[in-house]
Amino acid sequence: MNQLKGACVIGQSGGPTSVINASALGAIEAALDSGGITRVYGAANGIKGILDDRLYIMDEEDREELKHLRFTPSSALGSCRYKLKDPDTDDTDYKRILEIFKKHDIRYFFYNGGNDSMDTCNKISKYMIKNGYECRVMGIPKTIDNDLFGTDHCPGFGSAAKYVATSCMELYLDARVYDTGMITVIEIMGRHAGWLAAAAALAGDCAPDLIYLPEVDFNIEKFLDDVEAIYKKNGKAIVAVSEGIHDHSGMFINEYAASGIEVARDSFGHAQLGGLASYLAGLCRHRTGAKVRGIEFSLLQRCASHVASKTDIDESYASGRAAVESAVNGVTDKMVGFKCTRGGGYTCEIELLPLETVANTEKKVPREWINEAGNGILQPYIDYALPLIEGETEQKKVNGLPRFAKLKKVLAR
Amino acid sequence: MNQLKGACVIGQSGGPTSVINASALGAIEAALDSGGITRVYGAANGIKGILDDRLYIMDEEDREELKHLRFTPSSALGSCRYKLKDPDTDDTDYKRILEIFKKHDIRYFFYNGGNDSMDTCNKISKYMIKNGYECRVMGIPKTIDNDLFGTDHCPGFGSAAKYVATSCMELYLDARVYDTGMITVIEIMGRHAGWLAAAAALAGDCAPDLIYLPEVDFNIEKFLDDVEAIYKKNGKAIVAVSEGIHDHSGMFINEYAASGIEVARDSFGHAQLGGLASYLAGLCRHRTGAKVRGIEFSLLQRCASHVASKTDIDESYASGRAAVESAVNGVTDKMVGFKCTRGGGYTCEIELLPLETVANTEKKVPREWINEAGNGILQPYIDYALPLIEGETEQKKVNGLPRFAKLKKVLAR
Repeated sequence: MNQLKGACVIGQSGGPTSVINASALGAIEAALDSGGITRVYGAANGIKGILDDRLYIMDEEDREELKHLRFTPSSALGSCRYKLKDPDTDDTDYKRILEIFKKHDIRYFFYNGGNDSMDTCNKISKYMIKNGYECRVMGIPKTIDNDLFGTDHCPGFGSAAKYVATSCMELYLDARVYDTGMITVIEIMGRHAGWLAAAAALAGDCAPDLIYLPEVDFNIEKFLDDVEAIYKKNGKAIVAVSEGIHDHSGMFINEYAASGIEVARDSFGHAQLGGLASYLAGLCRHRTGAKVRGIEFSLLQRCASHVASKTDIDESYASGRAAVESAVNGVTDKMVGFKCTRGGGYTCEIELLPLETVANTEKKVPREWINEAGNGILQPYIDYALPLIEGETEQKKVNGLPRFAKLKKVLAR
Repeated sequence: MNQLKGACVIGQSGGPTSVINASALGAIEAALDSGGITRVYGAANGIKGILDDRLYIMDEEDREELKHLRFTPSSALGSCRYKLKDPDTDDTDYKRILEIFKKHDIRYFFYNGGNDSMDTCNKISKYMIKNGYECRVMGIPKTIDNDLFGTDHCPGFGSAAKYVATSCMELYLDARVYDTGMITVIEIMGRHAGWLAAAAALAGDCAPDLIYLPEVDFNIEKFLDDVEAIYKKNGKAIVAVSEGIHDHSGMFINEYAASGIEVARDSFGHAQLGGLASYLAGLCRHRTGAKVRGIEFSLLQRCASHVASKTDIDESYASGRAAVESAVNGVTDKMVGFKCTRGGGYTCEIELLPLETVANTEKKVPREWINEAGNGILQPYIDYALPLIEGETEQKKVNGLPRFAKLKKVLAR
C-alpha cells in the first residue's frame, strides 16, 4: 500500500439531489475514520470554495449531527456550476488550486457531481501530475439525469425516479376524478437523456398514456395525433415529456413556445428550459377542445428527500465511502461506478472507472427500450429501473416534518 | 332510537384530496357494519351518479381491498363539480334524485365534499322533507382549502399542509445551493382563503421569507419592494403566494398576467387560476435582475398521499364513520365537524353542525394571525396547524411504490 499523509477536501457540484449529502457523509465518515487522512475539509460551493479558500473543517462537526446528512437533500456544503478552462489555454485556476492544496496540505480531492464535475476532476488530476504534486483525485457520481457513462446507474437517479413514479401514480388518480374530458401534460427533468422521464412508466397501471424522451426526435403534429387518439378513445389523456425533447433539427420544443419566458443560458452553455408543459397543454387544447393542465415537476423531483429511495441512499453513501477508501489505498484518477446484476435478484457492486472515459460522455436510454412509435417505454427499462427505487427512507421527523442536518461550518484559516 | 331501514348512498364531490377516500372508507365500513342499513351504494361521480342512476354496490367489494382506500388519494368513486339549481326555480334534478332514492330504497345520503357539497346536501335534505320522503342526510367535510365554517379544520387540509411544508423545506435547501442570487416564487392553492399557503410557514427555519394570502389585498409594487429588500440583504429570496391573491379592487393578480393562459371558468363560476408563480417571478427578475424560478405546487399538493398526515387520515376516517353512525341513530341535516383543543396537547372531538350554517360560508385566516405588513404568518397559525400535520402515513408499498385500492365497481341495476 502506497501511503500518502495529508488532508482531504470534499466538494459538491452541479444540481442538487436528494442523496448527494449521503455520498458526502460516506466520504466524510470514511475520511474521519481513516488513519492516513490528517484533516477533512468540505469545500464551500464546490471548486469555487477551493479557489476562494473557503474550506469548512469537517473534523469540527458533531459526528451524530453529521449522520442526518444521509437524509438531508441538496448540497449541504453548497454547490456551483463552474467550468474550469482548458489548462493549456488558461491555467490561472489550476495554479490557484495548487496553491490552496499546498497551503492546507491537501493530498486527496473528492468531487461529487455529474459529467462536468468528472471533467473538473480529470483536469485537476492531470494538472497535479504534470506539476509533480502528489495528490489522489476521485470522482463520486451524482445526477438525477442518470447520464454518466460506464456506471450501471448514478446516485440520485433512483430517488428522483421514485418521486416521478409516485407523483405520476397520484396524478393519474387525480386526473381521472371527474367524468369530463381532461388532458394532462407533465414535464420531467432531463436535458439530453430521458432516463428520468422514462421513470413515469414505473407507475404501471397508473403510468401516463404517452411518454416522450429526447432520445427520439419529437414531432409536434405526431404528438398531437397521438394525444388526440387517446383522448378520443378514453376521454382522458396523460402525457409525460422530458424537458429536453427536440425536433429533427435539434431545436428544443420549448424554444418554440410563445410563452414569453426568456431562454437564458447558464455558464455551461446549456439552454435553460421551462414552460414546456403549459405550451404543449395549450396545443392539445387547441387541437381537441379539451380542458388541459400542464404540470412541471420542477425542482421537487431532485430534492424531495421525503420520498427518497433507500436503495439510492445506501448506494450513494457506499459510493462516497468507496471513493475515500480506494484513494487511501492508493487509487487515483477514478470515478466510483456501479456494476449491477438483475437476473436472479438485484445486486450492486462498486467498480472504479477511469475518469477520462467518464468525463463529458453522455449515456442515453437505449433506443430499443423505447417503443417503435417513440411514445412509450418498454419492459427492459422497467426491469432496469425498478430495483433502484426500492425501499423507503428512514428520515427522522420532528413535528411531522423532516429533520435536516445542521452543520457548524467552521472555516479553515 | 328512531330506526330507519333502507339503503344508503355515499358520494364524493369537488376536488380530490389525499384522504377523501379515508372518509369514504369510514362511512362505507360503518354502513356495512350497521344493522339498519340494508345496502351500501357508492355514487359514481357524486350527485351526477345519482342523477344518471350509476350506483356501485359497495357490499360487493372485498372488505380487505376496501381498507386500502385509507391510503388511496383522489376520489375512488369519482367526483363532480355539479351545482344543483335552486329547487324553487327548477326542481328537475330533485325530482330525479327522489325517483332514484325510491327506486333503490335509499334512506341515507352521505355527501363528502366542500362548501358547495354542503349546499347540495342541504338542498336535497330540504326537498325530501318538503316532499314527505323520509331520508337522513349527512355532510362529511373535505377540502384542502380548510375554509368550511363551524369546524375547527377540514379533513384533507392537514395532508395538503404537510405536503406544502415538507416541499417548502426541501425547496429552501435546493434554492440556496449556489452562492449566486436567486428568487423563487411558489404558488400554493387556495382561491379565497389562505390556510394552505400559510402552511408554508410550518417549514420553520426553512420557511419562505415572504408569504402572501388572499386575506390581505395584494399590492404588486409593495410585493416587489418586499422581495427586493430581502434579496438585497440575503442574495436569495423565497416567496409563497396563494393562488387567490388579489388587489384592492378584487381583481386576481393572475388575471393581470400577460402569460397567454386563458382564464376559463368552471361551472361554479370560480375563475380558474394558473401561471401566477411564473408571472410574479418574471416581475421579480425585471425589478432585481436576479435569476428567478416560478414553482406551482399544482395538483400534487392535493393528491400526494405518500406524504399524508396520519392525524388527517385518522380524523377523515372518523368523520366518515361518525356521519353514518349518527344518521343510523336518528341524526339528519348535519355536517360532521371537529372541535379541538390545543392548550394542553392536541385533542379532537366530533361535533355535528347544522348544514345550513355551514353551506356556502367561507372561513378565512384571521387577520391577526397574519403580520401587520401582510407578508408573513404569526405564531397562532403555527400553533393551530402544526398538530394537523403530525404522524406519517402507513401506506403500503409494492416495489417501492404506493399500493392503491382496486375496486370492482359493480353497478346496481
